[in-house]
Order: sequence, then C-alpha cells, then structure tokens
Amino acid sequence: MANWHKISGSVTAPKGFRAAGITAGLKPSGAPDLALIVSDTEAITAGVFTQSEVRAACVDYCRQRLQEKPSSRAILCNSGQANAATGEAGWQDAIQSAQWLGEALNIPPESILLASTGVIGQRIKMAALETGIPQVVFALSPEGGDAAAQAIMTTDLVSKAIALETEIEGRPVRIGGICKGSGMIHPDMATMLGFITCDAAVSTPLWQGMLSRAVAKSFNQITVDGDTSTNDCVIALANGQSRTTAITDPQSKSAQQLEAMLTEVCQYLAKCIARDGEGATCLMEIQVSGTVDDQAARKIARTIAGSSLVKSAIFGRDPNWGRIAAAAGRAGVTFNQEDLQISLGDFQLMDQGQPLSFDRAAASQYLVDRAAGAYLTDDTVLIAVCVGNGSGKGTAWGCDLSYDYVRINAEYTT
Amino acid sequence: MANWHKISGSVTAPKGFRAAGITAGLKPSGAPDLALIVSDTEAITAGVFTQSEVRAACVDYCRQRLQEKPSSRAILCNSGQANAATGEAGWQDAIQSAQWLGEALNIPPESILLASTGVIGQRIKMAALETGIPQVVFALSPEGGDAAAQAIMTTDLVSKAIALETEIEGRPVRIGGICKGSGMIHPDMATMLGFITCDAAVSTPLWQGMLSRAVAKSFNQITVDGDTSTNDCVIALANGQSRTTAITDPQSKSAQQLEAMLTEVCQYLAKCIARDGEGATCLMEIQVSGTVDDQAARKIARTIAGSSLVKSAIFGRDPNWGRIAAAAGRAGVTFNQEDLQISLGDFQLMDQGQPLSFDRAAASQYLVDRAAGAYLTDDTVLIAVCVGNGSGKGTAWGCDLSYDYVRINAEYTT
Repeated sequence: MANWHKISGSVTAPKGFRAAGITAGLKPSGAPDLALIVSDTEAITAGVFTQSEVRAACVDYCRQRLQEKPSSRAILCNSGQANAATGEAGWQDAIQSAQWLGEALNIPPESILLASTGVIGQRIKMAALETGIPQVVFALSPEGGDAAAQAIMTTDLVSKAIALETEIEGRPVRIGGICKGSGMIHPDMATMLGFITCDAAVSTPLWQGMLSRAVAKSFNQITVDGDTSTNDCVIALANGQSRTTAITDPQSKSAQQLEAMLTEVCQYLAKCIARDGEGATCLMEIQVSGTVDDQAARKIARTIAGSSLVKSAIFGRDPNWGRIAAAAGRAGVTFNQEDLQISLGDFQLMDQGQPLSFDRAAASQYLVDRAAGAYLTDDTVLIAVCVGNGSGKGTAWGCDLSYDYVRINAEYTT
Repeated sequence: MANWHKISGSVTAPKGFRAAGITAGLKPSGAPDLALIVSDTEAITAGVFTQSEVRAACVDYCRQRLQEKPSSRAILCNSGQANAATGEAGWQDAIQSAQWLGEALNIPPESILLASTGVIGQRIKMAALETGIPQVVFALSPEGGDAAAQAIMTTDLVSKAIALETEIEGRPVRIGGICKGSGMIHPDMATMLGFITCDAAVSTPLWQGMLSRAVAKSFNQITVDGDTSTNDCVIALANGQSRTTAITDPQSKSAQQLEAMLTEVCQYLAKCIARDGEGATCLMEIQVSGTVDDQAARKIARTIAGSSLVKSAIFGRDPNWGRIAAAAGRAGVTFNQEDLQISLGDFQLMDQGQPLSFDRAAASQYLVDRAAGAYLTDDTVLIAVCVGNGSGKGTAWGCDLSYDYVRINAEYTT
C-alpha cells in the first residue's frame, strides 16, 4: 500500500533545505542547544500549537506570524530555556531573536518562526543567543538535519529523525522530520516539538489540513505522563522545490499520496517519542476498534495508553487485563461491557466482557521479551481492544511507567 | 462557623447502627476481608456510583436496588475480589450474597446493598462468603465501626474513619463514615468506597442532593493516579434514630447544618485517601480561586493535583511553579496567563504570570518539612493558585508521585 521508501537524512533530505545544530551555551551541560532549519525559498507553512492557556512567547509569536503570512523561510529552536511565563520581557526576546536571525540570514524577520524548549519561566540567555545565531547560520548545511535533531533534545535519550521519498508525477518528492519529546507528552495537541520539511508544491489550506489530520493520528495519540507543555508545536514547511505541479485538490491522487506519507512521518516520529518516554522500558501500541467512529476509538486508545495503572502493570510485566478494561470503561465513550474483547500480542485475555483463561507465564514472558529490546528494536507491546461492532478504529502509543520516570522528574535539573 | 465536634467511633457512632469486620478467607493474606454495616431500622439511602462503562456487578446491583426503593438496612462489603468483569456469573453471585445475608439478618434481600473491592475479573470466593456471612452477622456490634473500616482495606496503609456530632432542635445528631482508597483514586465519581451513616431524619431527595454535592467537593476532588475504578461508590444511610423532626426543606437551617457536616465528613475522608495514596509521602492541597464559577476552579485544582510532573516535583521537594502553571494552563478553563498567581505555603512563586524571586532553599525546606510528618500529622503542602478576579473557588487534594507508587503497582499481588 505504502508507495514510499525510507531514505537517509531528515529535514534536509527534501530539496532546498539546510539545517544546523550547535552549542551556543544556553544549556549548562554544554550539549547542543541551538537548531536552525532554513528553506532556500519561501515555503508554505502549516502549524499546530499547544492548546494550553499558559503558552511560551514563541508559540504566540508563531501563531501571530502565521496568521499574517502562511509562509516562512526559517525555524529557529533553542533548548535549555522555554521562554514560557516570561511575560513582556520574553515576548521582546522572541522579537529580538527573529531580528538577529533575519539580519544573519538576510531575510525579513517576518519569514522566521521560533520554538523553545527547556525550563519554564526561564528567559532565553540572550547574550549567548546573540553570539550563537551567526554561528548556527554559518554551520547551515544540506547535511545538517541530524545536528538540528540533536540540538532540540532535552531529556530525550536519542535524537528522532526520519525521511521518506515517493514519486509524484514521475518526480521524487520527499518529506523529512525531526522531533523531541520525553516527559510532558500527552494527547492534547502537538505536545512536543516537531519540525517537518517537504519539497512538494501544495496549497496553503490543503497543507494545513493535511498536517492537522496527520497530527490527530500521531502526535495527539501519544502519551508519556499526561502533561501538556506550554511550548508544544509542530511546524511543517513545503517549499515546492521538487518542481511538481502544485497540489490543490484534496481529492487528487497526489494529495492523498502526500498526506499518507506525511501521516507516516508523523506516526514514526510520534512512536519514537513514546518509546523514548522518560524512564520507559517499552513502547505500547493500543489498537481500539468497534466504536461508532474513529474519534471514539482514538479516545479509548489514549485513555488506556495514559493509565498509570496499565503503565505500571506493563512495567511489572503483568498481563493485567483488568486495568485495561477499567481504563477503557472510563474513557468517556459509551459501550456495552458485555462486548469487550482484549488481547495482548497473540494472547486473548478477555471476551464478551469476561476474562479468558490464558497462559499467564507466557503472556508475562511476551512482555519481558518486548521490553528487552526497548529502544534498539521495533519491538512493541501490542494491546488490542474491541468494544463493539462499529467501524471506528484508532491507535495510540505510550510507554510503561518505571522507577526512572519518578527519578528523572523528581531530580530534574537542567 | 462549624458547630459540630469530633467524637470517637465511625459508622456506629450514630444511633441505631451496628457494624462488624471479620476475616472470611477471601484475601489470601488472611487480613480482614468482610465488612457489614446494619441499621436497626430501614434507612433513607443515597448513593453515588462510578461513571465507568465497565462496572462491578455490585454497582449495577445497588443502582437497580436504589431505583426500586431508596432505603435499606444493610451494606455488605467484601475485599479481595472486585466481582467486576465477571458477567452473568458475577451478577448471580451478587444476588446470592444478598440472599444469604437477608436470611442471616432476617430481613428482605431488597434491603441489602453490596460493595466489593479487590482484583478485577475475580469472582467472589462464594464458599468462603457463605461461611463468612453468619460470622460477620454474629460479630455485629455498636462498637464495630473500626473493624468494618479495617475489613474494607486493600492496599491502604491505614483505615479511615470519622464521626462528628452536632445539635439539631436541641438533640444530638451524628454522622459517621469509613472509606478505603489508595490507587485508582481520581475525580470522576466516587472513585473509592465510602460508607456513611447518619441518625438524622431527612427526606430522600434532600439526602441524595446533599450527598451528591458533598461528593463533588470531596471524593471527586482527590486524585492519586487518574484511574477510576470499576467499583467506586459512596453510600449514605440516614435512619432517623436521633428522633429529630424530618428535614425536608433544603433552605432550612437544619438542612444546611446537616449538609455542612456531611460535607466535612466527606472531605475529611477524601483527604485521608489522598494522604494514603499509594507510595505517597505527603498530602497536597490545591486551592484555586478567581474563576468564573466554582466548577472551573475545581477543574483547575484537580488538573494540578493530578499532574504527574507536579507530583514528581513535590516528591523531589522542588518548588517547581513552572509545572504548576503548565498544569493550570491545560485544565480546559480559559484565563489570561498575565493574571496567574501561584504560591506554595507562604512563598509567593509567581505573580502576573511571571516568576518572582523567592528563597528556593527555604521553599524546598517547606516541602521537606511537610513531607516528614506525612501520615502521622495534619501537615499539608499548600499550593494556592489565582487565575483572575472571578468569584469561583475550588480545592482539590492529591499526593506526590514516588518510587513506591511504581513498586506497589508494578509488583501488585493480592
């Protein structure tokens, strides 16, 4: 079905994009902390932002910017300070950042978008940023995607990047993406930082629609701890450098192909985030079916993926279908408990709302095996839940809850 | 303001109630596992039950029973097996339990309510129950409240009980209560087991209204881990044995006095549950003000109390106002972030949406001091949040998230 293939690289794989990541001295640790993604030409830009009432200055800045002009040339992202809850001073810092970068790139500040991640309430270290901006511009390269992916990390253990290629009208079209996640990941909106580049030509409303739908099926379906951040956003640039005809008809084969590939990029990145959840030892995939519509199925899936009791049980390698059933039941979706079916991998745990006898030791071993590989493999704990005979389907991803989640978040320092 | 005082005892403090708790062999551990509360006369009965789609047989049984007849004589509660997700067999077990108890007490089974707590998907050990029922009836005593409180415990570290007395029309009126909580506590409904007795005479709709409102301000405002159980319920009996005139007018001074005392009983018990949350080292009280109405304030308070990041920070003794602000922002209540004020105990952390400089070491020491006493004292970590100048107010209670939460829930056995 998928007529794309994975290629190396990430946000710089599509034509006409350069990127960089450097250490600007924003993080006390000395790790890379300033990332830049630049399109050679003005790119159609779609964005999805946190729904929180408490938002970082950069989020308000991007929303305002994109309302005025739905295209851009560059995304600047710092890690270390979130620039959230910083009031008017933080807002001025955002404006200053865009001005400095505009001068360094020789483009209008109106073509620049901003993102920040790090400690809430801390203003960006502007002196370090002022020095860092010319350096990150100097470091820009068509191979710089991975460096950018590293520079946006905070408590992430690994950087997250992907690039896919397909053919539209006989020409290669590519989408690349990087993201960062770990703690504060939850299905409410973007819930992390994600930057996506694409060299297709596509109309503005179509590109925004594609991104919104892809985010609903990916980043909004992952949960690490139920906390939504002040800074969450997904920004996607499409610069048309593949020289295909502009895609404007949502019903066209090209549009559907592009959206499917965009969704795959988002789902891949979302799963990377869930797998790398703070303290996680395994990735859980929750597939829900039998609801009236997809939205209801996604809601149940998210609730199960976010349940502390389910997550603790999986960490304990306990095939605890009771906690899965309880989480499904409180998701706010009406169903008949006599219809409930639950399986874990190949083990059917529950049918017609009642537990089945199953080989508990083998089911527990399944959990041990899936967890063993954890980050290095594609192993996934698969939980399938059916709640009726409706045609609705939805998937969510999450991770288990371990001692390390508590350690990381109780002893957090920058 | 409060014109009541605390007295010794719990559900057997009000006139005309007896109770008992025994070991019937339902729990493998040999701990007490069968509780019974009996009113000498038919008592007006109010109930609030879990909103989950996956419910224990006893919940459906009680709801059906109370629809038919809003009064009862007895509540039987077993711990060890939840009798949830047990289908038709579990339903028959519920009917059988009521029949056995009806015979032993010589009352109609229609006057009996049932509750269960324990492992989901396990049917009650009916052979042990059949033997246990005459024993628990034999053990009934006017001093049996505390034994009943012990027999409903599962992972609770301590039993939870209270009794208050006031005067109405010159006669003493008492309300007693017991509850059990620990894991699976969340603001969605009753979210635990609570049994309340009262010797006032009160009309059925008034008593139900009082209980619903009291639960909204107490049990529904506590959270341990965000999981709602299949078995949650609060049942309140009022048997009129105080021989006061029946309270029927909600505007009367007597009604308001009774409701205030009922609310106090519920809040006291709810706080006991939050303080005894699995792995908790301290009780957090979140006071929110400045919203349009109380409901909005309660919603924000619950969201903060339930945030894994806030809970982890408190466990780490970190006065992390950023996580508190982020949780407030995603509660689904509109406010202006420039209005946000946050304080921790006497430390003002944030004003006008921006962090204030405060003595971080002293604020951290405040958290250390509050936690030290934990269960033994009334020490509470107080977080106050104001989001505007509305008149809405609300409080929620929760506990911190510790390594022990994970240990208890990952290594859970009955």
